[in-house]
Amino acid sequence: METLGYYNGDIGLLDEVRIPMNDRACWFGDGVYEAAISADYTIFALEEHIHRFFNSAALLQMVPEITKTQLAELLYTLVHKVDSPTQSVYWQMTRGTAPRTHAFPEHTSPNLWVMIKPFTMPDIYQKVQLITVEDTRFFHCNIKTLNLLPNVLASEKAKQAGCAEAVFYRGNRITEGSHSNVHIFQDGVFRTAPRDNLILPGISRAHLITHCGELGIPVDETPFTREELFAADEIMISSTSTFCMSASHLNGCKVGGRAPELLRQLQDAFLDAFRRLTRAGSMPIRERCA
Amino acid sequence: METLGYYNGDIGLLDEVRIPMNDRACWFGDGVYEAAISADYTIFALEEHIHRFFNSAALLQMVPEITKTQLAELLYTLVHKVDSPTQSVYWQMTRGTAPRTHAFPEHTSPNLWVMIKPFTMPDIYQKVQLITVEDTRFFHCNIKTLNLLPNVLASEKAKQAGCAEAVFYRGNRITEGSHSNVHIFQDGVFRTAPRDNLILPGISRAHLITHCGELGIPVDETPFTREELFAADEIMISSTSTFCMSASHLNGCKVGGRAPELLRQLQDAFLDAFRRLTRAGSMPIRERCA
Repeated sequence: METLGYYNGDIGLLDEVRIPMNDRACWFGDGVYEAAISADYTIFALEEHIHRFFNSAALLQMVPEITKTQLAELLYTLVHKVDSPTQSVYWQMTRGTAPRTHAFPEHTSPNLWVMIKPFTMPDIYQKVQLITVEDTRFFHCNIKTLNLLPNVLASEKAKQAGCAEAVFYRGNRITEGSHSNVHIFQDGVFRTAPRDNLILPGISRAHLITHCGELGIPVDETPFTREELFAADEIMISSTSTFCMSASHLNGCKVGGRAPELLRQLQDAFLDAFRRLTRAGSMPIRERCA
Repeated sequence: METLGYYNGDIGLLDEVRIPMNDRACWFGDGVYEAAISADYTIFALEEHIHRFFNSAALLQMVPEITKTQLAELLYTLVHKVDSPTQSVYWQMTRGTAPRTHAFPEHTSPNLWVMIKPFTMPDIYQKVQLITVEDTRFFHCNIKTLNLLPNVLASEKAKQAGCAEAVFYRGNRITEGSHSNVHIFQDGVFRTAPRDNLILPGISRAHLITHCGELGIPVDETPFTREELFAADEIMISSTSTFCMSASHLNGCKVGGRAPELLRQLQDAFLDAFRRLTRAGSMPIRERCA
């Protein structure tokens, strides 16, 4: 297939799959999601994504009817149905299908959605342009939910400004991007916002921190400010689909570019790990996602 | 019909209507909605609901392809298809159907959804129990969007506590309920949160303010605190489906009950207006919603 949509066992081309109007995604955005990249039919960091997915669900008091292993197996089955060497693998769980009422419905079970599309690998060494946008989101940003309107509005602002991403600030603190985490190099230190309810605990972010450790780069997870962002030696965004890219401009001003070797070391380490793990091919799923 | 679901012209029983997976409601909650009550085939305060609907859409940069009059005509056409003297009339508009990407899609038009169900008129003179919950929502609460997860979680908390509604506080300020506005009587004054980005500009709220004016009750729209809520002479919630109901308990403590005459005057005024307007029957729609 070229693209794939899956809903509770129904499979079809993404554009053709239909879902019930009473799925709670439709009225409340009542669900959680994940997105990962598959290369050569190996899904990168799948265990971590599935772990975060179950954690997001638990934080919203949603109880999956599928185990982690079953989910991994399903995703691999579906990945093999799409004819593309690199794929975007997206899945979400919604609280169920029931007449619209805010409180949890009593007699329903979660719905499982999957979407698989061909994916073009990013050139992570290319520079991106960014804008800053006030962070008007809720206080549950640690949960990967379907309540994404402020992210949508910020992304549109970035697009209108010809930029790749919008960086949120809450008060003077930089939190994260509209669909990425944000980091800086400052005097040789990798700085990134702390893991709290104002940012998503990014999987690429966690990998970057690990790579910093391996490379002997100090990591500082205390909040940094808008002024520190503008003055940083390098500004980076990281996400599942952008990996780790650095910025040349912020709100139209030239930024970063003062620690190119450190940046390159970190990007190389990220890309090497991606290639190593995806080239390794499929390990038995039961071992990886038990 | 017993219930009705409508999606871009498709009509069926609510449980049977299907929508495309790529509707942006499904990935982002990217849409706005309204709910109104129909009695004897007259939709109460329809013009105000449609006005707010268009305003919500504009605040999210969504451009309806339907006029206000066309929407009113459509809703009336659908209301007449459902066999119930009182109905809940719900409609929403989503940004469109397109492959998932945060920024606005370029080649799509909004989707229009309608849901009509039989509705049981509330006994507005019955007392309700409330709990308080921290307001962890975003800063766009003036827009009636489909990003309702904190409201869902708060409603569930209320339900678990055997209560009808959760009252949000942000810092020490009372904002509103999870699906209602919140007001108090204090020393003969009707107090309600100001219209800003932290509350929905409720249509029932606006009617209550108008009725206060007619009844000679002073209105104060400056923020009130948690302490003032607990100490109030009466606590009221208002919404499309609850009209105006008062509370007997808050977090398990007895509250209110010290201004029953004022409360009754206001509730009577609200209900009288509802009955008068809905009994008046359908005025020509073009005159009402132009």
